[in-house]
Amino acid sequence: MSLAGLSINLATIRQQYGFAAAVDACLAQNITAIAPWRDQIHAIGLDEAARIVRSNGLTVTGLCRGGMFPATTPEGLAAAIEDNKRAVDEAVALDAECLVLVVGGLPGGSRDLPAARGMVLDGLAALLPYAQAQNMPLAIEPLHPMYAADRACVNTLEQALDLCDQFGPDIGVAIDAYHVWWDPKLAEQIARAGAGGRILAHHICDWLVPTRDLLLDRGMMGDGVIDLKALRAMIEAAGYHGPQEVEIFSAENWGKRPGDAVIATCIERFETVC
Amino acid sequence: MSLAGLSINLATIRQQYGFAAAVDACLAQNITAIAPWRDQIHAIGLDEAARIVRSNGLTVTGLCRGGMFPATTPEGLAAAIEDNKRAVDEAVALDAECLVLVVGGLPGGSRDLPAARGMVLDGLAALLPYAQAQNMPLAIEPLHPMYAADRACVNTLEQALDLCDQFGPDIGVAIDAYHVWWDPKLAEQIARAGAGGRILAHHICDWLVPTRDLLLDRGMMGDGVIDLKALRAMIEAAGYHGPQEVEIFSAENWGKRPGDAVIATCIERFETVC
Repeated sequence: MSLAGLSINLATIRQQYGFAAAVDACLAQNITAIAPWRDQIHAIGLDEAARIVRSNGLTVTGLCRGGMFPATTPEGLAAAIEDNKRAVDEAVALDAECLVLVVGGLPGGSRDLPAARGMVLDGLAALLPYAQAQNMPLAIEPLHPMYAADRACVNTLEQALDLCDQFGPDIGVAIDAYHVWWDPKLAEQIARAGAGGRILAHHICDWLVPTRDLLLDRGMMGDGVIDLKALRAMIEAAGYHGPQEVEIFSAENWGKRPGDAVIATCIERFETVC
Repeated sequence: MSLAGLSINLATIRQQYGFAAAVDACLAQNITAIAPWRDQIHAIGLDEAARIVRSNGLTVTGLCRGGMFPATTPEGLAAAIEDNKRAVDEAVALDAECLVLVVGGLPGGSRDLPAARGMVLDGLAALLPYAQAQNMPLAIEPLHPMYAADRACVNTLEQALDLCDQFGPDIGVAIDAYHVWWDPKLAEQIARAGAGGRILAHHICDWLVPTRDLLLDRGMMGDGVIDLKALRAMIEAAGYHGPQEVEIFSAENWGKRPGDAVIATCIERFETVC
């Protein structure tokens, strides 16, 4: 099987490698699509990162991440919007296929989820024209409801698509198996997303039983309960055929194994269970 | 404030008390509504538990719990349905206001969530006539999506109400703040539930940030991020005015404090933040 359909999100090997070494490790196993995080880009410098991307002909399936809009003050929201514009600039420099947005949760002690969601809407409205002017699609990533308080108050595909529909084109969704697999409306909403041309990324990993940590205990594909082949079939039937991007946060397991072994396992599982 | 609107789910004080001692501890602080678990009832015996309920004029806001339908074999599903009939019998003996159903997750290594949901539908279809014959309402409790794999594959209020609508009357929902607070369709679906006369229970606790354990780190009301007053307003506007039932699984914090202090804190928070 060609590995053109496989991308490695560099969070998966962040404990082992900085950006340049991560790229080398991917290339050594014929992986030519990656998704870096902004802090990894900042550590090496945007120009050097962009040079590495171009000189190796890499596909950047997404830059992680913009978002985090809700704030306790108008100045805070304005600062978040400015930072998101820098994220757009970086995504453009890296020729990324989209800027992934984790929209943010409840700001500083707030219990007002509708207000946080309103700030996300305002933030997107301010950011989208800037991104459109540079031809950089924005990919809202609905996060699992267990992150509603502290990471993202957009928690279902339906909610993300409702947001997109308030804007029109150039904004869509990143569909991450970990965040959406449980959703009783998953098939319906993936079809809706595809019909609207809104599927911009397809992330994979697995849900472990038991899950020992809300953030850092994601599983390798095949080690959990997500029917990844069924998800892929829904996404492809909806018209999206881009790479599947492996994004595993696993501080105590995969994060502690040799990076080349992690990448080799991603490839083996991609070829067998995804 | 009268405490008639407050019920203590005995899971909240399970580490401190068996059924009889839990009742005594509640009565000592003028709590006259409780919700026991089946294992607590079995430990003392159904007849004795029913005698304690009657002799003290207690309200039983629900019996926890039936459900757990999905199984790896038809025999397993049939056994689950039989066990649920015993749960109905027990709820009737205790004069409970409803039997709470935690429907079950993926059976033994399955990745087939639609099939599990189908078994839930089949289980409910088999159980409901039995419950109706004894006048015992069934309350489907949609559980937070983080429990989809191992506890309940009904994960939103909308999904639970769609299930109810396949059956007609005598089946409804238990709305637990912990499970539903994040839902972008919460207000809409609570209104729908109320219009259909389907709100059978209202459970409260709080979502802590950070949450350190997926199951056993629920917060005391006021210690987390849930807007409990707003939730209560939605539920009351939808026509439900039954007690708020405090259900806190907190093995390492509230489970280790003296039971009377836990109950006193429940009362104080009920009077101030709920």
